[in-house]
Amino acid sequence: MTEPTAPALPVVRRLPRYYRFFSELKKNGVKNISSRALSELMGLTASQIRQDFSVFGIKGQQGCGYDVTETAAELGGILRLDRRKKAVLIGAGNLGRAISEHMDFEGKGYELIGIFDSDPALTGTVLRGLNIMSESELAAFCLANKPEIAILCVPTEPAPELARLLYDGGVRAFWNFSHANIAAVCPDAVVENVHLSDSLMILSYLYDKNC
Amino acid sequence: MTEPTAPALPVVRRLPRYYRFFSELKKNGVKNISSRALSELMGLTASQIRQDFSVFGIKGQQGCGYDVTETAAELGGILRLDRRKKAVLIGAGNLGRAISEHMDFEGKGYELIGIFDSDPALTGTVLRGLNIMSESELAAFCLANKPEIAILCVPTEPAPELARLLYDGGVRAFWNFSHANIAAVCPDAVVENVHLSDSLMILSYLYDKNC
Repeated sequence: MTEPTAPALPVVRRLPRYYRFFSELKKNGVKNISSRALSELMGLTASQIRQDFSVFGIKGQQGCGYDVTETAAELGGILRLDRRKKAVLIGAGNLGRAISEHMDFEGKGYELIGIFDSDPALTGTVLRGLNIMSESELAAFCLANKPEIAILCVPTEPAPELARLLYDGGVRAFWNFSHANIAAVCPDAVVENVHLSDSLMILSYLYDKNC
Repeated sequence: MTEPTAPALPVVRRLPRYYRFFSELKKNGVKNISSRALSELMGLTASQIRQDFSVFGIKGQQGCGYDVTETAAELGGILRLDRRKKAVLIGAGNLGRAISEHMDFEGKGYELIGIFDSDPALTGTVLRGLNIMSESELAAFCLANKPEIAILCVPTEPAPELARLLYDGGVRAFWNFSHANIAAVCPDAVVENVHLSDSLMILSYLYDKNC
């Protein structure tokens, strides 16, 4: 696997989708697939797929296309789903609970090692097999357990201070569901934002345009 | 407000963020803001902001910038947050419950009028003030209540059939949390996808690159 240049973000953003499709094909017993057949399945052009794959050094075989098992493994490897990543989740409200219970963290290499909330009523209750801890224990927990990634399911207001505390504790990646600008307080960390209410507003706009 | 050409999707995707910032500025009592001050706040260039705003006919005043109250209202109007949109939510599992309880639907013009689940154990229980209904009641409900938008918090497998049923019942917009390709079964509907597990995979990739 060769990676000649740093891939552009739009290409990177397509990787999980390729991974999902190849995993599904593998599950269905498909052995090989051409970029053309894949393009029909995915709604991308065959040349786009070939170009994306070449960025990551994924090669097909003339005449028989991509080996499904091999390509699925390559894509999973590129996404580093095999790398164990210790994660903490901050905020065990409706959203935090759903995220903790709904997501297949293990399947993506994440190990959820701690859940924290500011509400004393939640402290000590169990979520996804973990005792919810108080946010006041967060700094000491980071020192002792060295989480690498934090999932922020807290409101916008407390998010920057919590992020900074986590950053000082060694966290360098954030899955951010708040609207806070985490990159501003944690300059060299990776931040992946999920702005659900923005998405709902975009749907409102697009729906209206479509009527 | 003039809209000379159909705005490109990346511009549209920035609209909710502008709306959030102007709403926040308004809440904080800010009267006017220049594109330069806004650019520092938002991490976009001032020329990008002016260009985006000009697409939607939003004008500032030479010397004093954008009127905050006026611009917030204009952005909300463009996003059609004032338009009442009847929505149904399908799937009252962890994610569906969190979405129904966490989101400010009303603030974005959505009215949640029905929640459905395939699990008989959930039917009749209350969520966000609504009695969860059986999916077998969905077609009749659409006929009687004419929802316009559906929130799909179901697994990938049943999603296309449910989407088609909703489409036949008049639904033309989907907020899709499943991995199903809804656009393929509902050709002229608007589909806004939220792929949480893709986002988690991208974080894995970016984190690893950043180490």
